[in-house]
Amino acid sequence: MPIIHVELLEGRTVDQKREFADMVTREGARILRCAPGDFNVVFVPVSRDDWATAGKLESDPK
Amino acid sequence: MPIIHVELLEGRTVDQKREFADMVTREGARILRCAPGDFNVVFVPVSRDDWATAGKLESDPK
Amino acid sequence: MPIIHVELLEGRTVDQKREFADMVTREGARILRCAPGDFNVVFVPVSRDDWATAGKLESDPK
Amino acid sequence: MPIIHVELLEGRTVDQKREFADMVTREGARILRCAPGDFNVVFVPVSRDDWATAGKLESDPK
Amino acid sequence: MPIIHVELLEGRTVDQKREFADMVTREGARILRCAPGDFNVVFVPVSRDDWATAGKLESDPK
Amino acid sequence: MPIIHVELLEGRTVDQKREFADMVTREGARILRCAPGDFNVVFVPVSRDDWATAGKLESDPK
Repeated sequence: MPIIHVELLEGRTVDQKREFADMVTREGARILRCAPGDFNVVFVPVSRDDWATAGKLESDPK
Repeated sequence: MPIIHVELLEGRTVDQKREFADMVTREGARILRCAPGDFNVVFVPVSRDDWATAGKLESDPK
Repeated sequence: MPIIHVELLEGRTVDQKREFADMVTREGARILRCAPGDFNVVFVPVSRDDWATAGKLESDPK
Repeated sequence: MPIIHVELLEGRTVDQKREFADMVTREGARILRCAPGDFNVVFVPVSRDDWATAGKLESDPK
Repeated sequence: MPIIHVELLEGRTVDQKREFADMVTREGARILRCAPGDFNVVFVPVSRDDWATAGKLESDPK
Repeated sequence: MPIIHVELLEGRTVDQKREFADMVTREGARILRCAPGDFNVVFVPVSRDDWATAGKLESDPK
């Protein structure tokens, strides 16, 4: 039943996503006392033009 | 006023989205007692590399 | 696998949520060609102080 | 710490996003009493096939 | 049509939300070339027990 | 910069949230090559009346 959304700048590999999803499901099931089968993990890759921190787009020079 | 987000694996046709949006707005307005004009429906197509259930990416062999 | 979020002003009854969840799962499974067992529907009740349309809080007089 | 998501039909320019992110961070920090450095702003561009208002896709003729 | 979600630690007043919603709708309409009537702004107050930055809950001593 | 949302049925303790936030930040930083200081983790506790799987509210008898 847990639904986990991971928003992050685009560019991560499928291997990184696979490892993260496996890790967060295994460790999350242990800590939160859920069945691993109940986890949905959704990655949301975000373009550097679409993310601003401290008011500056990530695609702009710092 | 209701805002409905529908996350689903990519690959649905425009016809499926049109039918779903029409259905959920009509039936939702009836059940929830809202004006149909107040509904926003947003589809969020997700790549099979970006969705994991039970710790496995949808793009991986089961 | 579809995940459906329904944000709406608070105050709907459990009966309305039950009927909506049943309807959207049944009709959604038919239109989107998914198994009903794969649907997660999450309601997000929002206080009238926390929703603004056209720049005005829903709790303010029109 | 505030996280601001802005869903909108695709097609805005990087200049519009830059100006919006700067504005909402500056004015938001003032109104909400937060440090500008604590703001994350994420734009979510949505295709006209993926957004329906009043039950009609934005890509359909009105 | 823009939908703006504002997640922030709970504790802001209705006056702060009113001022923020008015500001972001007016300035957003100008920058993004949308009608003010098309804006939905939803505040999502989050408890300090439910937000972690850098791996620490906001409710924990720094 | 990663923003992680964890939606789950209400009832987890602060200790479980603390352990989960610490774990996902540490392991996530390692796997995704981000600084731990860039992680935001937001828990979204959901009432059993507000979550349906397979068309049935979690608060209803199975």
